Amino acid sequence: MSFSPPLRAVVFDVFGTCVDWRSSVAREVALAAGKLGVAIDSFGFADNWRSRYQPSMEEVRSGRRPWTILDVLHRESLDALLPKYEMKALDEAGRADLNRAWHRLDPWPDVVAGLTRLKARYIISPLSNGNVALLANMAKRAGLPWDVILGAETSRAYKPLPQAYLNAAAMLGLSPDEVMLAAAHNEDLRAAQACGLRTGFVPRPLEQGAKQRKDLAPDGAWDVIGADFVDLAAKLGA
Amino acid sequence: MSFSPPLRAVVFDVFGTCVDWRSSVAREVALAAGKLGVAIDSFGFADNWRSRYQPSMEEVRSGRRPWTILDVLHRESLDALLPKYEMKALDEAGRADLNRAWHRLDPWPDVVAGLTRLKARYIISPLSNGNVALLANMAKRAGLPWDVILGAETSRAYKPLPQAYLNAAAMLGLSPDEVMLAAAHNEDLRAAQACGLRTGFVPRPLEQGAKQRKDLAPDGAWDVIGADFVDLAAKLGA
Repeated sequence: MSFSPPLRAVVFDVFGTCVDWRSSVAREVALAAGKLGVAIDSFGFADNWRSRYQPSMEEVRSGRRPWTILDVLHRESLDALLPKYEMKALDEAGRADLNRAWHRLDPWPDVVAGLTRLKARYIISPLSNGNVALLANMAKRAGLPWDVILGAETSRAYKPLPQAYLNAAAMLGLSPDEVMLAAAHNEDLRAAQACGLRTGFVPRPLEQGAKQRKDLAPDGAWDVIGADFVDLAAKLGA
Repeated sequence: MSFSPPLRAVVFDVFGTCVDWRSSVAREVALAAGKLGVAIDSFGFADNWRSRYQPSMEEVRSGRRPWTILDVLHRESLDALLPKYEMKALDEAGRADLNRAWHRLDPWPDVVAGLTRLKARYIISPLSNGNVALLANMAKRAGLPWDVILGAETSRAYKPLPQAYLNAAAMLGLSPDEVMLAAAHNEDLRAAQACGLRTGFVPRPLEQGAKQRKDLAPDGAWDVIGADFVDLAAKLGA
């Protein structure tokens, strides 16, 4: 598959697309609850934490709240959630550590191999609502071989605001149509496409667990569909 | 050598410290002049181009000019310089390409080996006045294995303004004393130290060519002196 102008960079949604946030967060929640001697539904906790993600960013996107990084939003959501799970005894060090569960998410099994292939031909970067420290620590632990780390913090704008996509391309010195967003979420791709980026869909049918109903299949005119990151690399000639 | 709190990240000055900008730019200038059939002093051209670097950034640092990335400042300096070297016939494509000489600088021979060792123990990043695209393209070409790319553009502040150093640490989620700046320039280290960062000096006595008189030796109370990046890695236990 070739593009005109030629594709120069592939940028990636991270939560759900590159990493399995749900299982990883549930694992860390179970550990923290175990230390407190509390038995909880750790996957339910993870889902509940994640359900506060969009509303918390919307406060910033709307302008009602000044620029705030995701680590801070995650922490506020965590503090609100702990009492509902009989975990309000978790101390400051425990809360700070549990909040960094989002820095320790495991990649899907194809991700490192696919990114490594893509990196040989393209500039690869996250384009995530995660902050730089979160993404850098995650990459270091998981071996994600990014060339550069871009996202909401470097643009000071949360996806799906256009500035998040346009600024990433600009920071790479590229026009939007020289950059592809790869994501497991149709809405993210729709926003990127509206900004002129190329689009690649990779399904992650287990992101929300076995009962997932959303984003099981592509529902837009995306440039490429990859079964996983290795297939995406092959289809992009990498 | 150990620090309290432990050192978590090493960030690097790039022009002069990681890469030999003078020889690399001179090489590209000679190529461009050759295509025009003009015989010039290509090292003199490189020195002259570089001499406009600090004054051009000072316009931005002082607030007289809004935030402007280095690629743009480099290009303005180039356009001013070409007529003085009988190269004003260089066309737009030729100018754009020659300006990207700064994206194609060669690393000093010890840099890739030293960074690779340091990366195994620390987060490594540039902390450069170069813009993100410049640094990403340079890293891709030269094999500089950065974990993340930070610098003036991500902070929207040129060194030696404090914000350039403080914002890099903040973006890594670290306190300034968990971060070391490694540089071949005493002034850069002085500004970093004033912000609370750790400091490492690595001499680059040929940065300005054989007649270099500045920065031949450390002249501050730096935390570590490395003969080169491999020695720096060894002294930092990496």
